[in-house]
Amino acid sequence: MEQVSFPPLSSVVICGGTHGNEMTGVYLVREMQKQKVDKVGSVSINAVMSNPRAVEACTRYTETDLNRCFTDALLSSPITDSTPYEVRRAQELNAQLGPKGSNKAVDMLIDLHNTTSNMGLCLIFDSIDYVTLHIFKYLQSKIPSVPVRSLLLEKPPSEAYSLDSVGKHSFSIEVGPQPNGVVRADIFNIVKEAVDHTIGFLQEFNRGGTFEGGEVEAFTVVKSVDYPRDPMTGEITAAIHPQLQDNDFKLLKRGDPMFLSFTGETVKYEGEELYPLFVNECAYYEKKIAFHLAQKLTHKFPSIRVKKD
Amino acid sequence: MEQVSFPPLSSVVICGGTHGNEMTGVYLVREMQKQKVDKVGSVSINAVMSNPRAVEACTRYTETDLNRCFTDALLSSPITDSTPYEVRRAQELNAQLGPKGSNKAVDMLIDLHNTTSNMGLCLIFDSIDYVTLHIFKYLQSKIPSVPVRSLLLEKPPSEAYSLDSVGKHSFSIEVGPQPNGVVRADIFNIVKEAVDHTIGFLQEFNRGGTFEGGEVEAFTVVKSVDYPRDPMTGEITAAIHPQLQDNDFKLLKRGDPMFLSFTGETVKYEGEELYPLFVNECAYYEKKIAFHLAQKLTHKFPSIRVKKD
Repeated sequence: MEQVSFPPLSSVVICGGTHGNEMTGVYLVREMQKQKVDKVGSVSINAVMSNPRAVEACTRYTETDLNRCFTDALLSSPITDSTPYEVRRAQELNAQLGPKGSNKAVDMLIDLHNTTSNMGLCLIFDSIDYVTLHIFKYLQSKIPSVPVRSLLLEKPPSEAYSLDSVGKHSFSIEVGPQPNGVVRADIFNIVKEAVDHTIGFLQEFNRGGTFEGGEVEAFTVVKSVDYPRDPMTGEITAAIHPQLQDNDFKLLKRGDPMFLSFTGETVKYEGEELYPLFVNECAYYEKKIAFHLAQKLTHKFPSIRVKKD
Repeated sequence: MEQVSFPPLSSVVICGGTHGNEMTGVYLVREMQKQKVDKVGSVSINAVMSNPRAVEACTRYTETDLNRCFTDALLSSPITDSTPYEVRRAQELNAQLGPKGSNKAVDMLIDLHNTTSNMGLCLIFDSIDYVTLHIFKYLQSKIPSVPVRSLLLEKPPSEAYSLDSVGKHSFSIEVGPQPNGVVRADIFNIVKEAVDHTIGFLQEFNRGGTFEGGEVEAFTVVKSVDYPRDPMTGEITAAIHPQLQDNDFKLLKRGDPMFLSFTGETVKYEGEELYPLFVNECAYYEKKIAFHLAQKLTHKFPSIRVKKD
C-alpha cells in the first residue's frame, strides 16, 4: 500500500459525560478544564462536558441517549417545544465542534465512556480511518498494562449516531469494568494515559514523522443477543452465566454456557463461533442486549505522514 | 453463658428492591413471588418488593432513601401532601410487616442489598441478637465459597432506620461487588444460598434443635472518611487509591495509600489501625463517604433453643 498523507491534526477535543454516570470522562474533563491546558506543542486542546444535565443528575441521560443523536437526520431536525434536551444539546455540540462533515470540524474528537463489562480499553471507530487505526496501533504499543482492542461499527457518516462522528477523525474509548456512578483510579489512569499518548501521537505526526503501515485486528458486531424474558411481563428470567460473565472477547463456542436462569437452568450457546462483547453492560438492559457477538477481522493500513502545503 | 430460649420463628419475610437499582434482591423477590412459595415446613414465607417505584425507575430511591425511613419518628410522622413517597411506603411496610417493636411483627425479616464495594457476603445487624448471631455463624459454616462477615450498627431500636428493624429478629444482607442496575449470576446464587440456609436454620430451630453457644467476630464502624474535595465546588479531587480499592476488611495502617488525586498525588492514611469497609460504594458519594473505618470485636453468645409452651 502506498503512503497516504493527511493535513496537520492541529485540534483535539476530549469529551466526557456524554453519558452522565460514566465517571472517568466526567472527572478527566473536569480536571483538564481546571488545569486550563489549551495547547500542547502543535495541538490545541479543548475539554468538553457533553451532557452537563445528565452529569448533574448522575444519570446516563435525561430524556434520550445523547450518544444516539448525531445522525444527519437528528442534527438537522427542527427544534420544537417537545424536542428532547439531548437532541438540542447534540445540535449545540455539532455547532461548537463541527459541523459534522464540514471543513470546520475539529481534527480529532475523542469521546470517553465507561462500561460495566470487562472490556479493558476498547477504541470504537465509526468507519475505517487510517489515522485512527495508526493511533490504535500506537496505543497498543504504549499501554502494555491492559488489553487494547478495537471495535469497528462501519456506519456511513450520515447514519453514524455517536458524538465522536462530529470530528474529522475520531474514536470513542470504552473502558471497564467500572460501575456507573463510581470512579476507579486504575481505570482513570488508563484513560488518562490513552489521551496523553494520543496527543503525543498527534505531535509526532504534525512534526512530519512517518508512521509505517501494517495491520490491526478489529472486532465487528455481527448480532446482539437479548436475555431470556418472561413472555407476559417482559422481565428477564436469567442472568449471564458465570462462565460467560467477565469473559468479553473470549471466543464463544457451540455448547458454551450463556445464561443461568433464576431457577438454576443453564442456557447454552448454539450459534457459530463468535466473540462476545459488552457482556452484562448495565445500559443495555433497556436496549434488550445481554451481549453483542462479533467477528475479528484484520485490517491493513498504509504508512501515513503529514501533508506538506 | 446459660442457654437462652426463644419462641418459635414461624414467619420470615424476604425484602428486595429497598434500593431499586440493587438487582439481586429485585430478581430474587420476583422469582419467589412467581413461584408462590408461601410455606416451607414450619415457616411461612413472604417475599416483598419494598420500593416498587424505585425498582420501576431502576434508581436507588425516588424522593428519599427508603432504608433511612424506619425510625420511630418517621414511622409516626403525619402524612401530608409534601411527605416523600418513601416515607409513606415505610409506613405501609411497617403496617404490613410490623408494627416495629410489637408482638405482631414478623419473626424474621431479611432485607437484600448490593454494593459496588468488594464486601463479599456481609450481614448487617442493628443490635446484638443471639438468634441472628447464630444464623451468622450457621451461614459461615454453610457458605465456604465466599467470605461471610458481619457489621454491627448498635442502634437503639427507636433510632434504627433500616427496613429490617421492623422484624422481631432481622438482618440486612449486603453483597458485592455488583454494579447498580446489573445482576450477576454469581452474586445472585450466593444470596439465594444465604436465604435458603437461613430458612433451613429456622426449620432446625423450630424442630427443637439446640444450637451451641460460641463466639463470632463482628465489625463496628468507628468513623467515616470523605473524599478530598475542592473547597469551592465541593467536587471530589481524588479517587480511592488502587491499593485500597477492593480491599475492604483489610487492615488499614498508618502510611498506607488511601486516595490518588486526579493530578497523581497519593494521600496516605494517618490514623489508628482500623478496617475499611464499603470502599468506593456508589451510593455513598452523595453521603460524603469514601469508606467507613471499623474495629473488629468478638461477641460471645449462649446456646439457644426454641421455647416450649
